[in-house]
Amino acid sequence: MDGPVSIKGWVRTVRKQKTLAFVEVNDGSNLSGIQCVIVFDKVDEATKAELDKVTTGCAVELTGPLVASQGGKQAVELAATVLRVVGACPAETYPLAKKRHTLEYLRSIAHLRPRTNTIAAVARVRSHLAGAIHAFFQTQGFVYVQTPLVTASDCEGAGELFRVTTLNLDSVSTLPKAKNENGKEQDRVDYSEDFFGKPAYLTVSGQLGGETHACALGDIYTFGPTFRAENSQTSRHLAEFHMVEPEMAFADLTSAMNNAENMLKYVVQHVLDSCGEDLEFFQKFYDKALMTRLEKLVQKPFVRVSYREAIEFLQEEINKDPSKWQFPDVSFGTDLATEHERWLAETKFESAVFVYNYPKAIKAFYMRDNEEDGGETVNAMDLLVPGVGELIGGSQREERLDVLEQKIADVGLDKEDYWWYLDLRRFGSVPHAGYGLGFERLVTYVCGIENIREAIAFPRYPGNAEF
Amino acid sequence: MDGPVSIKGWVRTVRKQKTLAFVEVNDGSNLSGIQCVIVFDKVDEATKAELDKVTTGCAVELTGPLVASQGGKQAVELAATVLRVVGACPAETYPLAKKRHTLEYLRSIAHLRPRTNTIAAVARVRSHLAGAIHAFFQTQGFVYVQTPLVTASDCEGAGELFRVTTLNLDSVSTLPKAKNENGKEQDRVDYSEDFFGKPAYLTVSGQLGGETHACALGDIYTFGPTFRAENSQTSRHLAEFHMVEPEMAFADLTSAMNNAENMLKYVVQHVLDSCGEDLEFFQKFYDKALMTRLEKLVQKPFVRVSYREAIEFLQEEINKDPSKWQFPDVSFGTDLATEHERWLAETKFESAVFVYNYPKAIKAFYMRDNEEDGGETVNAMDLLVPGVGELIGGSQREERLDVLEQKIADVGLDKEDYWWYLDLRRFGSVPHAGYGLGFERLVTYVCGIENIREAIAFPRYPGNAEF
Repeated sequence: MDGPVSIKGWVRTVRKQKTLAFVEVNDGSNLSGIQCVIVFDKVDEATKAELDKVTTGCAVELTGPLVASQGGKQAVELAATVLRVVGACPAETYPLAKKRHTLEYLRSIAHLRPRTNTIAAVARVRSHLAGAIHAFFQTQGFVYVQTPLVTASDCEGAGELFRVTTLNLDSVSTLPKAKNENGKEQDRVDYSEDFFGKPAYLTVSGQLGGETHACALGDIYTFGPTFRAENSQTSRHLAEFHMVEPEMAFADLTSAMNNAENMLKYVVQHVLDSCGEDLEFFQKFYDKALMTRLEKLVQKPFVRVSYREAIEFLQEEINKDPSKWQFPDVSFGTDLATEHERWLAETKFESAVFVYNYPKAIKAFYMRDNEEDGGETVNAMDLLVPGVGELIGGSQREERLDVLEQKIADVGLDKEDYWWYLDLRRFGSVPHAGYGLGFERLVTYVCGIENIREAIAFPRYPGNAEF
Repeated sequence: MDGPVSIKGWVRTVRKQKTLAFVEVNDGSNLSGIQCVIVFDKVDEATKAELDKVTTGCAVELTGPLVASQGGKQAVELAATVLRVVGACPAETYPLAKKRHTLEYLRSIAHLRPRTNTIAAVARVRSHLAGAIHAFFQTQGFVYVQTPLVTASDCEGAGELFRVTTLNLDSVSTLPKAKNENGKEQDRVDYSEDFFGKPAYLTVSGQLGGETHACALGDIYTFGPTFRAENSQTSRHLAEFHMVEPEMAFADLTSAMNNAENMLKYVVQHVLDSCGEDLEFFQKFYDKALMTRLEKLVQKPFVRVSYREAIEFLQEEINKDPSKWQFPDVSFGTDLATEHERWLAETKFESAVFVYNYPKAIKAFYMRDNEEDGGETVNAMDLLVPGVGELIGGSQREERLDVLEQKIADVGLDKEDYWWYLDLRRFGSVPHAGYGLGFERLVTYVCGIENIREAIAFPRYPGNAEF
């Protein structure tokens, strides 16, 4: 091969033998890194002295020609003639000095955990997934809209919202208090003194803002953070996570399902093409069936089944042996549990499955009524995938002003709060549809990892906003 | 041309004449839309009845063959044989019924303003810019990291931060109060009762989190929302905006400048290639010099000048006639004002200009000291562009543990708060550098518009979190 090259990265392992040393160096761009071989006879004293300082985790620069590797693991290795330690790493205190750590432990050092194989591979796959999502929508002519995170709209009930304020909670006695019409001080703060002049929250979804732009620009998508102040410590929930929310004008539920299927196949194919080494790593250490599952997802058409049919299939199966099920009571109106969703995707269909036309009572007010179904269902869909369950939820939106106003009243909301959302139905209303993809859930699905806290750089959950 | 096509969109104008009508329809995908011609003799009564309902803003579907246009404005038009009103738009109440509105007025109807030419064009250009930013970094092998928005770290002083809380501000008397060591109730809330167990804020920058991943993965970038609770009502500031923050390991200030120059040229070239019609619109109505300015940016190498040189150039110019300047006192240590920045970019160099090696005293603690400069300056750079001033700010980061600890102490911060940031220097530290691009400022620059509140879907500023 050609002349000397220079390798810069972090040492994963160093093994010294009598006449030579092996230094495994990783620069973060891929999983395997590169093996560097230092033959003591061929290097000067300075490099030998530097070698004595090399430990796991230290930053190094090595120079030498690339040569065919002696071992079987990789094609080439660096025959290093010069070694320089760029940044030392004291073995006594380095939290990653040993090779194996639990994922739980790594969360406590989230600033260092991308230096491990697992978390670095997740980060690379996540980045490729995000890049492919943007590429898919951009090439399809969708306009990327960054909807606001701070909002005075409280769209789905205040219980799960984070408040945003500049009022001084370090001085409770001086908090401005609201006054009633008689000038009497109330127990609530006077929000007119707060930064935005009214109560403000972190958004739970970009959908309503996205609809405003779809009803002007045609096809749009959002991709940004959303927040839930739910006090849950599960492996499936985060307080801060990311949603991809496309919205299409002149579109119905079928358009939304078609787009979701195309999008998912596109991004998973991209990862199969671009992240083979990382996926093989996940298959080896986390999920033996990973590659088969991903390849099937890309190749097979997704199954589409109505909620009513899905309930019938489930009832038939549960009746065979109800004792096998945690929730054996399933009938029209049941909100499917994860065991039901997974049975449909993993056992019944062995495929990604769209379940559509859900009962009105268990879905959001803005979803469009199905007249042809006795008014009992709405044009909603969930995408269930093997191994995870629900990955995507979407719907055609109710575009008829009078129907939507009635639905808002039916669920006890105040239509005044939705004046701008209703305006979209007052002025040039069009059928439109969209869906939401939980991005971190996609990351866990594609990587075959179990806990969503590994799918994001710095996970936020109750009691944790460190780093 | 071939058989009939179907056009769906919103009516911009409708003009009826004796024997025919012209309906201008826009579906949001481009500026000019399409002209549809309805010849009364050639359509049925149903379409004529629908035509009577057509007003500006209503949603329509038209079908017919595409034919060569009679007028000069566009190549083809639709010879409509069928017209159907999809969603009516009452002219009496439609806020956009008239053609011209001020940008200020449009902000009050931000949910409808993407239906105007200006805001739709901004949205399309913004989306192309965002897509190109992702494409640039993805093709360069940078890993996209989504750093957290909610953080317990308060990195640049608490004054400008938004607090995030689930404590109930509607019931001040029941707010949990902290107790001192004697069990006496304090005037501040007990943050251990809050969602994250400690005070939590919205982030002002993803940089520190980005550094953790650059020091493991090599090259990374962030692109997400950031927040400033500054009580400012200027045309250049938002409370919620977006930053692009790349960070590169084994990199110095020159690497950061090179990357910033390449990135900016790539994304502006992409917009020149993809958004010609929208840019021409901005040139016509907002900034006569727009295309020349953008083309120059792409073609000319950026000027690079040290802060010391820049000060000398400024002093020389100001001395000619100090009365022309609002801030004529300029010497080493001066934080350049916008008039200085714009003179350098617009008059002195007529080019984008990197000013580098700023005085330590006016830059952040984490920037790397320049030893060769008597310790007076740091490896910082700002990119100044004609028409806007500062667009990018960056630096090489201080990677030496002892120096960084001293710098933290010098500015009165507590190094305990930065334990994880300092860990990056304790374990395998490497020279690294990065920069931040204010995305909305880039949008205003590329569109030639003045106010940053037009550059984002739903602007947030003091007193405003509507929609």
